[in-house]
Amino acid sequence: MVTVYLDHAATTPVRGEALHAMLPWFSEHFANASGSYAAAREARQAVDCARGQIAQAIGAKRGEIYFTSGGSEADNWALQGILRANPAKKHVITTMIEHHAMLRTCEALEKQGFRLTYLPVDRSGRIDPDAVERAVSEDTALISVMLANNEVGTIEPVGAIAKIAQAHGVVVHTDAVQAVGHIPVNVQTLGVDMLSMSAHKFGGPKGIGALYIRDGVRIDSLIYGGAQERNLRAGTENVPGIVGMGEALRLACLELPDQMARVARMRDAMQEDILRRIPGAHVNAQDADRLPGHLHVTLDGADSNLLLMQLDMAGIAASAGSACSSGALERSHVLLAMGVSGVHQADIRFTLGAENTPEEIGQAVSALERIIKRSSHHT
Amino acid sequence: MVTVYLDHAATTPVRGEALHAMLPWFSEHFANASGSYAAAREARQAVDCARGQIAQAIGAKRGEIYFTSGGSEADNWALQGILRANPAKKHVITTMIEHHAMLRTCEALEKQGFRLTYLPVDRSGRIDPDAVERAVSEDTALISVMLANNEVGTIEPVGAIAKIAQAHGVVVHTDAVQAVGHIPVNVQTLGVDMLSMSAHKFGGPKGIGALYIRDGVRIDSLIYGGAQERNLRAGTENVPGIVGMGEALRLACLELPDQMARVARMRDAMQEDILRRIPGAHVNAQDADRLPGHLHVTLDGADSNLLLMQLDMAGIAASAGSACSSGALERSHVLLAMGVSGVHQADIRFTLGAENTPEEIGQAVSALERIIKRSSHHT
Repeated sequence: MVTVYLDHAATTPVRGEALHAMLPWFSEHFANASGSYAAAREARQAVDCARGQIAQAIGAKRGEIYFTSGGSEADNWALQGILRANPAKKHVITTMIEHHAMLRTCEALEKQGFRLTYLPVDRSGRIDPDAVERAVSEDTALISVMLANNEVGTIEPVGAIAKIAQAHGVVVHTDAVQAVGHIPVNVQTLGVDMLSMSAHKFGGPKGIGALYIRDGVRIDSLIYGGAQERNLRAGTENVPGIVGMGEALRLACLELPDQMARVARMRDAMQEDILRRIPGAHVNAQDADRLPGHLHVTLDGADSNLLLMQLDMAGIAASAGSACSSGALERSHVLLAMGVSGVHQADIRFTLGAENTPEEIGQAVSALERIIKRSSHHT
Repeated sequence: MVTVYLDHAATTPVRGEALHAMLPWFSEHFANASGSYAAAREARQAVDCARGQIAQAIGAKRGEIYFTSGGSEADNWALQGILRANPAKKHVITTMIEHHAMLRTCEALEKQGFRLTYLPVDRSGRIDPDAVERAVSEDTALISVMLANNEVGTIEPVGAIAKIAQAHGVVVHTDAVQAVGHIPVNVQTLGVDMLSMSAHKFGGPKGIGALYIRDGVRIDSLIYGGAQERNLRAGTENVPGIVGMGEALRLACLELPDQMARVARMRDAMQEDILRRIPGAHVNAQDADRLPGHLHVTLDGADSNLLLMQLDMAGIAASAGSACSSGALERSHVLLAMGVSGVHQADIRFTLGAENTPEEIGQAVSALERIIKRSSHHT
């Protein structure tokens, strides 16, 4: 059975061009980029080239891109690194709907004595910039608000929040893991000081990501050791991963306007179909400015785990929320923050990608309809 | 010009079988291993299989292997994670010759108020286990001693040190990044509680490594977030990297006795040749139990950077010490700890690998001889 893959927010296939670009760097041109011979210089140039591609994609300077092992490390580094470099300040502002890479780090920081403010969201998952203004204090070391939510897809007013941060002289970070490669992202327009991204969310490989750190921001390391990444992130450079990330992002940005329109068109059609054909279906964050591929549905009278299992058996790959917390029984913290708290409801996240077709979307809606109708007959 | 690659301690080519095993997991079977559908379960099985291969290679249980982005992260995690989980204890014992991934982390910890003991070594780079015994106190949270030094190749008496740690109820970690896949490594025989490794040092890909954590050891996370790696290391599993690491280590262990003998034979021949043909050449840690491929030479009347450049032009890839600190002008902390502190000397590390041939070794020695003789004519 051919699977219809509708979980692009969890991960995407490595695009052919990115894999092709990576291949020579595994076994043939395998040198350590920090070495002092010809083969090492060649690897170093490949790393620099990818760094340039990524910088260009987000409006940064090449020297402001620091490679990490992915989005979780980038988020952890931003948070832990800023606090360690500014030991006098003990307050962090973030939101109730961040990814666990932020929230679990925040919990650990609370145990260490830091004070955390978790901003609430409205029914569409939106942060109110005024709430940031009210929360800022003399003691605030960092404001971190995600650019787009991984579960419901809501795009947050990070530009307005960054202006407030700037006015107070507070460093501002955004987790842009879901946004980069999917909507235009520019660190100058946004005005952020730090931005996290992850290659496997936009057609690059797993195990590689980056943290943008604006020149002049004082940050400590998360991973200490060798002098790689201008002495801020130790560890032998993952040359194939870095090359694949650069190529994938270059191409994603090139195709961005077309792909956004195409994916949003399919998503909108899927949304309309689901609302029309499936009784008890609600779309979360429907009124929000959303990522083009995100469609998060709550279904009355259904069970998330059972529904996902039935979709899986029908060859439809989707998720209840974040892949990072799948298997969990509680309702997502994002939905709870949005006030979506009805009982006996199932939550399903469909996230569409470049390689999906309208036919696949049709198959998925039909499968969902069959499952829901069948189970309502039984109960 | 064909390069003679003699920098295997910096990195190794990904072996063909490992790359072959990785390839299906990039674009075809690309699912997130934490998903809840068929393709995700398949990725999860591949991760579990690799975890089993790595566990078996070092005598651990499958559930004691935690994937990281490499050796530096594993070292950082071991150190930072143990201290965060045991806040009452403020003392760490390590050595003067650890990799920078340990030493730079130790420096950061000292700034945070921890007390560090750096054990000295003898002229061969050996730690005296009795020195560990003398350094242990009620306040000691961790003892960390590398299994084999990355610069000179000296194998440390980690088994004896672990016995002492055990007797005092102190957690013991070893950085085995240079040892795993090159000499037999067994966590039961060694008696260590934690062990760091890195795939690209034994024919696996860059950007993936692991930390062995014995069941029952209380450790906090370095990278917080999703529930991956039994809730201890967040971030989407790097499935291709993990699969490549498992396959590379399985094969390295299979071939270990033969490769150790073959590589050591070449290394010994190279050592003899250098000592015989090149005036003013000394071999560091010559009397120590060394890694089979390590040959660290100090040459009187020469300059490291110039010599490396000349070797590079002659097609010989080697390094002055650790790749992670190449470009640095000071003499290596390892050599200084060993008492190698003469002036106007060059230090060159040759590290041989499985794919080297006796012919290549001959070329390298001849090139070195030519360079040294030419420069002594000029001065």
